[in-house]
Amino acid sequence: MGKIDNKIFDVIITPLKKIENKKGSLFHIIRNFDPGYNGFGEVYISTINYQDIKAWKQHKIITSNIVVPRGKVKFVIADLREDSTTECIINEYILSIDNYVRLTIPPKLWYGFMGLSKETNMLINVSDIPHDANEQINKERDFIKYIW
Amino acid sequence: MGKIDNKIFDVIITPLKKIENKKGSLFHIIRNFDPGYNGFGEVYISTINYQDIKAWKQHKIITSNIVVPRGKVKFVIADLREDSTTECIINEYILSIDNYVRLTIPPKLWYGFMGLSKETNMLINVSDIPHDANEQINKERDFIKYIW
Repeated sequence: MGKIDNKIFDVIITPLKKIENKKGSLFHIIRNFDPGYNGFGEVYISTINYQDIKAWKQHKIITSNIVVPRGKVKFVIADLREDSTTECIINEYILSIDNYVRLTIPPKLWYGFMGLSKETNMLINVSDIPHDANEQINKERDFIKYIW
Repeated sequence: MGKIDNKIFDVIITPLKKIENKKGSLFHIIRNFDPGYNGFGEVYISTINYQDIKAWKQHKIITSNIVVPRGKVKFVIADLREDSTTECIINEYILSIDNYVRLTIPPKLWYGFMGLSKETNMLINVSDIPHDANEQINKERDFIKYIW
């Protein structure tokens, strides 16, 4: 079952099954009763080039559930919520096929991500509300001090 | 919007957007108001090796929505439904990143698929009910005559 991340309150890291068989493999992403599931709005694929960084983003109301089935991606989450009980406000999460987990990012957190593999870095994002440009806030990289 | 496949009644082929930008790309899969969307149960990744075939499968009640974001996969769908109005009972669908479409397979159809690329053939399946072994019927390859 899901493991509650103890660095940022209500960020969830859930180890996922990879089932190998002789004709191919099966990789879980999310089911409608899994930890972090909050309803279905959209699922899409996004890729991030090697050493490119997309930061910072905040969703006002969307919960994201993210897996990385190809390549390696570093996610950085910053908790600037006023009512946060979090001890450590910035935390890093490395996702890849070798560390195949689902990262649940609740709304109101700031996050960014960076491609770590020279091959394709692919992430799959399942969100509870379809993409809406008005729902997302984007800030420049220097909005939060972090050495990528 | 979705194009109704005219070979097998209620199979839907929906062309999907691929949006390129300088840091990476975005590939649509499905939103909760898209053609073929029938509720959310599970999303998972499956891979199929080159020239391997998984056939035949039938879902009693599940609707599947499938994309192929890596490699190339041939799907073959056979319509043996008694009340079918379909003129042509077996049809082929080639999915790949170059033919990036969503294939909606309603329940009660038989289907199978084959890996066509020597690289990884990856499919993402969004279904309206979580995987349940009792919901799926599997038959041997010779159950339906088809030259793969």
